Amino acid sequence: MPHIDLPEGLHGIRAAMAYRPETAKPLNEIVQVLLHDPNSLLPGERELIATYVSHLNDCYYCQTIHGAIAAASLNGDEELVRRVKADFQHADISEKLKALLVIAAKVQKGGKHVTADDVGHARDLGATDREIHDTVLIAAAFCMYNRYVDGLATTQPHDEALYRERGKQVAAMGYVAVSKTYLPTATQAE
Amino acid sequence: MPHIDLPEGLHGIRAAMAYRPETAKPLNEIVQVLLHDPNSLLPGERELIATYVSHLNDCYYCQTIHGAIAAASLNGDEELVRRVKADFQHADISEKLKALLVIAAKVQKGGKHVTADDVGHARDLGATDREIHDTVLIAAAFCMYNRYVDGLATTQPHDEALYRERGKQVAAMGYVAVSKTYLPTATQAE
Repeated sequence: MPHIDLPEGLHGIRAAMAYRPETAKPLNEIVQVLLHDPNSLLPGERELIATYVSHLNDCYYCQTIHGAIAAASLNGDEELVRRVKADFQHADISEKLKALLVIAAKVQKGGKHVTADDVGHARDLGATDREIHDTVLIAAAFCMYNRYVDGLATTQPHDEALYRERGKQVAAMGYVAVSKTYLPTATQAE
Repeated sequence: MPHIDLPEGLHGIRAAMAYRPETAKPLNEIVQVLLHDPNSLLPGERELIATYVSHLNDCYYCQTIHGAIAAASLNGDEELVRRVKADFQHADISEKLKALLVIAAKVQKGGKHVTADDVGHARDLGATDREIHDTVLIAAAFCMYNRYVDGLATTQPHDEALYRERGKQVAAMGYVAVSKTYLPTATQAE
């Protein structure tokens, strides 16, 4: 049962966002920019970073929905998402993305764990400053989203089909557009 | 030295925000709503929660600037800020705020650490659902900001006068208005 009186029929962060539209708006804009908008990293690659960090933080809702969005963005490859969570160093992803996942995992532990060597290694494999910036901020942001979702004890149904369907919608439409299908009118301004 | 090529002359999150205005805008809006806009918790109380979580995450920049904003919001009481960081249970703050700081500290460790008893105790001391929600999100958000600031190895000068001056400005003007004094034009549109 959620710790506070959240709207019924919505799960995970969607319930928390519907409860407080004033914060839902910027919270949605952050993932829209970081995970969906045009970027030299593919949406699927950025969703894998979000999924991996959510897995490290043991947040069922976030790792499942972002895993579903990642799979939908990567030709439906759910097995790749599982491999990245279990052992990304042996998953079929680029060496650059592996180096960025190393940085993301350090950020999850705490910002000071990231070393100049971690960053230099990613750069040697082709990562740009912007990609390193976005990786750090994606990992940091999911340390927020995961804590928000679990800290309020939101409901998180274990029904993979639900997440798979939603994942396809978000992958196709993006976060801000999809949020308009469930958030109260007050947040629909932009 | 920062891990990536951040604008010179800006420190902490201000350098990171100037580097990536697209994310700076929603990042500023979150603190504006959570820490500055009207709320049943005073700005100073909310800034103390942000300061305490930043202290737990050992982020010098964030704990110092938010400590300065908290003090500026609380009649310049810097000693109170120090007491809250060192041992909030014996600081001169309300029992309700102490119960909210307990929740914030649990969120800092991970969302699942928050228990129904923690929330029930805060409620018994007068905390509303909205105040509990905002406490969870403030604590979660500072787990992001702290990781962002330290994960990029931003510069963080140890000059308290700098933070004190800036703290007064933010306390008086709020985050979105103050950001216009240093962020590139692109972020000033809203």
